[in-house]
Amino acid sequence: MNLILIESPELRGDRVHLSDARAEHITAVLKARLGDEIRVGLLNGNRGRAAVIAIEKGAVELDCRFDEPAPPPPRVDLLLALPRPKVMRRLWAQLAAMGVGRIILTNAWKVEKMYFDSHVLRPEGYRPPLIEGLQQAGDTRLPDVHVFKQFKILIEDELDGLFPDGLRLLARPGEGSSVLDAVPAARSGRVLLAVGPEGGWIPYEEELLTAHGFLPVSMGTRPLRTDTACLALLALAHAKQRREAGYHSL
Amino acid sequence: MNLILIESPELRGDRVHLSDARAEHITAVLKARLGDEIRVGLLNGNRGRAAVIAIEKGAVELDCRFDEPAPPPPRVDLLLALPRPKVMRRLWAQLAAMGVGRIILTNAWKVEKMYFDSHVLRPEGYRPPLIEGLQQAGDTRLPDVHVFKQFKILIEDELDGLFPDGLRLLARPGEGSSVLDAVPAARSGRVLLAVGPEGGWIPYEEELLTAHGFLPVSMGTRPLRTDTACLALLALAHAKQRREAGYHSL
Repeated sequence: MNLILIESPELRGDRVHLSDARAEHITAVLKARLGDEIRVGLLNGNRGRAAVIAIEKGAVELDCRFDEPAPPPPRVDLLLALPRPKVMRRLWAQLAAMGVGRIILTNAWKVEKMYFDSHVLRPEGYRPPLIEGLQQAGDTRLPDVHVFKQFKILIEDELDGLFPDGLRLLARPGEGSSVLDAVPAARSGRVLLAVGPEGGWIPYEEELLTAHGFLPVSMGTRPLRTDTACLALLALAHAKQRREAGYHSL
Repeated sequence: MNLILIESPELRGDRVHLSDARAEHITAVLKARLGDEIRVGLLNGNRGRAAVIAIEKGAVELDCRFDEPAPPPPRVDLLLALPRPKVMRRLWAQLAAMGVGRIILTNAWKVEKMYFDSHVLRPEGYRPPLIEGLQQAGDTRLPDVHVFKQFKILIEDELDGLFPDGLRLLARPGEGSSVLDAVPAARSGRVLLAVGPEGGWIPYEEELLTAHGFLPVSMGTRPLRTDTACLALLALAHAKQRREAGYHSL
């Protein structure tokens, strides 16, 4: 954890009493003592510093000052055919750490319907790992999560609302221009990256996506696992956005 | 698996008898029948196709033709401060899938010594997940693995032998030029990416690395977990190498 995230309802004034894994982290990993300052963040709010004002058995009391802005919001969103729950469970934290604004999960022909019953798709299943990823990366903004069981309805009726402007890219192994060439120079432009199921989209799905503005891009000829592909794509989109925007040294 | 990897000692002429997870994959996932052709590869050799010539209970007999070259060898190597065994265990397959020529694991001040006793560092621990990653990506070349318990000896005495030419990059969060700007245009150039332990390199280690030609690069201000950082860096280096070499559509 490079930041301890605190939620507004936990605060009493500037103070918060922690007795969960965060308290454990503060005492056992950071080895903080009375009076030490640690880095904190307010979920979906500012970052800042907190003084350790009390340490009891398994609990810590902090006096917080949230006076630094959060990092700039990610300008990348993800449209992902739901992977196996085991893969999705591991992916949440890594997506939040890399930085993604909105995560849109969808059914597809090659996604097993029963995946949608998994605990990893419920807020109590994905919120903790998302927060873990934010704490790793020093961010405070929880990605938006949307789950669609009907691919056609998502693409035809809902997507323009969720992702009104910006570039839509469809990642697949094989031929196709590089993500690096596709991601635009515009400082404010958003990118939506579509990643298919392990077995790939079926032709009908690819046609629907391209009919709705998705441009095919490739990371080469090696088929990657869903989780590997998502992280690689996010890395490329972020690096290109940073670079084109002239943020060479951020 | 997008390719079934076979090792030379398993072959009798062009034939191989499989009775392990590969046989299971061929019958249960690929649902191959007698006479069907499947994609195969010879470990560290060519790729090709094999005809299914017998299916028994839990076993498959293949007639192989290895007549297609393997994908081009990755031109990226990795120097990685050994992460926790749990992280390393998951990372092997993803590294092999993304494509990496040589994986050099090292001790560092913030690496716990006992990690080096882990099963994940023994060939019987890392070979199966590396092969799994190759089968995912359709590659046949097993990455070279080297393990060093002494950072100073590695950097001062061994590294020039393991990585004689090419660009050495030191990844760290914060300031620094982008990997995209650092990776060279040269078609034949290799890149060695150094990734530190979760807590970072200590100043002495960074100084030793920079004194031995490592240039600092950054992927932004978000500190990432070791595994996420490795995959993101590999994605950037590969994308830049593909792009600069003019392989826009490979």
